[in-house]
This record gives sequence, C-alpha cells and structure tokens, in this order.
Amino acid sequence: MTKPLLQLALDHTDLPAALRTAKALKNHVDIIEAGTILCLCEGLQAVEMLRELCPYKILVADLKVADAGETLALEAFQAGANWMTVICAAPLATVIKAHDVAKTYQGEIQIELFGNWTMQDARDWHAAGIRQAIYHRGRDAQASGQTWGQQDLDRMKQLSDIGLRLSVTGGITPADLPLFRDIDVQAFIAGRALSDATQPAQVAQAFHQQISAIWGATA
Amino acid sequence: MTKPLLQLALDHTDLPAALRTAKALKNHVDIIEAGTILCLCEGLQAVEMLRELCPYKILVADLKVADAGETLALEAFQAGANWMTVICAAPLATVIKAHDVAKTYQGEIQIELFGNWTMQDARDWHAAGIRQAIYHRGRDAQASGQTWGQQDLDRMKQLSDIGLRLSVTGGITPADLPLFRDIDVQAFIAGRALSDATQPAQVAQAFHQQISAIWGATA
Repeated sequence: MTKPLLQLALDHTDLPAALRTAKALKNHVDIIEAGTILCLCEGLQAVEMLRELCPYKILVADLKVADAGETLALEAFQAGANWMTVICAAPLATVIKAHDVAKTYQGEIQIELFGNWTMQDARDWHAAGIRQAIYHRGRDAQASGQTWGQQDLDRMKQLSDIGLRLSVTGGITPADLPLFRDIDVQAFIAGRALSDATQPAQVAQAFHQQISAIWGATA
Repeated sequence: MTKPLLQLALDHTDLPAALRTAKALKNHVDIIEAGTILCLCEGLQAVEMLRELCPYKILVADLKVADAGETLALEAFQAGANWMTVICAAPLATVIKAHDVAKTYQGEIQIELFGNWTMQDARDWHAAGIRQAIYHRGRDAQASGQTWGQQDLDRMKQLSDIGLRLSVTGGITPADLPLFRDIDVQAFIAGRALSDATQPAQVAQAFHQQISAIWGATA
C-alpha cells in the first residue's frame, strides 16, 4: 500500500480567489484540483492558469464528464491537466473515449462515484483500463448529515480489490483519516478544510503528519 | 399534450463560434442551451452573453450538476439562465437545493437522465417539486451505434405518467420525430443537426413543420 497524497480542491466561483489559495498552498500539497464549480464558472482557463502557477504538480480537471468524452478530454489535457474526472453515470463509451485521449497525454481518467453504480460497472471500468476512482460524500449529502459508515468502507475495500486506487473526499479532516487505514487510498481530497482555514499551511501539515503516522513515513 | 418546442444546444468549445451560431438561429428556435462543453470550456460568461444576445428566449444552462446544487444554481440563474440541468446521479439533497434556488428565480431544474437511475428516483424527484427531465442518447453512445428503441419509448411514457415533461436529445433529426408521438415532449434538443447544417434555418424549419404535422399547429 503506497502512502496517500494530499489533494487541494479549488471550488471557488472566481479564478483570482482560486489562484490566491493555490499560491498559498501549492508547496504544502501534492495535487492541485481545478474543481467543478471553478471550471463551470470560469472555464478551462482555470486549468491553464493553475498549470502555469504549478508547472510540476499533478493537476486534476474535475469536470465530471458525462458525455463527449473525447472532446472534453482533449480540452482538459491540452489545458495542462494530468488527470480528468468522468462521472460514473457516463456511458462506458464515454469512459473509453476519454481514456484513449488520456493515454496519448500520459494522463489518467478518474471515475467519480455518485448515486447509483454497481461493482459490475467498476469491473467494466477496470477492464477498459481505468485505474482510479473517487469515493465521495457529496457536499449536499454531507450538509444533510450523511456520515462515513461501515458500508462506505466495505465498498471502498471492494473497489480496491477490483484494482481501482481511490481518492476520498467529502468534508475530510485529519481526525477522519484512521477510518481509511485498510483502504488503498491514492489521495485525500480537501477543499474548504484547507482553503477556508485561518492557518491553511498548518492544516496541510496536520494532514501530512496523520498520513505518515498511519501509512508510514516512506511510500 | 402541448406542442413540443425546439431547443438549440450550443456545444462549441469556444464562445465566439457559439455566439455566431446563436445569432444565426435564435429566431428559428424556441430555446437556447449553453451546452456542457461550452460552459466547461468558457465558463458561465457563456450564459451571460447568450442572455444578452437573446433577452426573451428560454435559456438553459446545461451544467449537469452533481453536487454543490445551491452554489451552482445561484451562479447559473444569476447569469441569466431560466432552466438548469442536474444529473440523475446527484444526491436528492443536491436536487432539492438547486430546486430551492430555481424557485426564487422563477426558474426550473431539469434532471438529466444518464446511466443508472430508477423509476423510484423519478418519483422522488417529482415529489421534491421537479417537473422536467431530459432523456438522452449520449453522443458517445450514439457514435457507438446505440439507437432509439421500444425500451426508450416505454421508459419515456412511464416518466410522463409520473408527471415529468421530457426533453429528448441525441442525434435527433426531423425524420425521427414520429417515434415520439405518444410522449409528452417538452422540447426536442438539436445540436450539431442545426449548428453543422449548411442551411441551418431550413433544418429548423423542417423540425417545426414536422412538430406541427404530428402535434398540431396550436399548443
């Protein structure tokens, strides 16, 4: 099991604010994400400007693509993304087209798990070459009181066993990390826990310390 | 059954091209849609500029929202949208939050049906106040040869019976319309059938003639 990375999700509605947060935190995280809100509000110039700001970071375009997999993957990878998200509700044809483009850019597609999906879907994605998925507690689900439960952890374990590395997101704080000790976690994604913190670098540090304490200091 | 409307989907990757198409066709269609591709590439300025160009048309922001329903609905309706799409994979909490914002703008939420969803989901959406859904043959599914079948038509009829007005999309041409004569269709959505035509206004005219021939000249 490799050591999980820390991903900063930028879900600002305006680009200057997102860039300010990225600038303040880029040396404290492993992955930068142009969130769906940011991309919808400001367009893919958000990905371009984050690439310019962070030339050597892993950069995620969280587009939650449902259709037009080829067109959107071309746009995202040309803008500088390393990874792009496709929503689980997308037809398999869309996943395959996006993955084909990703390969030509040495990029990867991440399947974003929301709503109804099955372990057979997960096996189909894996058979199509996909190696990453994002396990979610949605912002709205979270606000309505839905917490991480044993069922989530069991499903994550099954997804790991299929061969999908998982990024985990949804109001995660350093205190939550021990929950996931048996899962093959690619990254923990934190948005407002980092960007809204009064001392964001210290929160990032707390994530890294907790990750090292649980998964070991070296990968 | 009311007479279906004709919706122009703008799925360009750049805004100037989308605006040129909108300008050429706005008097030949009933609804203008800022497509997902356009919004992701260019941001919500696309909705703002289409609102400016077409002050009195119904304007759809096809954001396929999966989370952050309140934030994205506020952004879309403030930018001038009348209707905004939410993907069926979104948690019900997201649908409800988006719908609450829509109401304050006299707007509507359309549920975009992709992948796995159930008739119970549809009943839940209706119970939450939703009155519209979009029935899809995805661009990639279409390219991989998937056609409209009796199963699609049966599911559309069931959705109509639940109380959801349907917009239908996915490579539709005027010749396809008789297939849908028993469905309560809100709109037929045409993208490239209109925007890539050598005589787009004539294609729009052919849609309107076919709609009138099937559903009657008056609403």
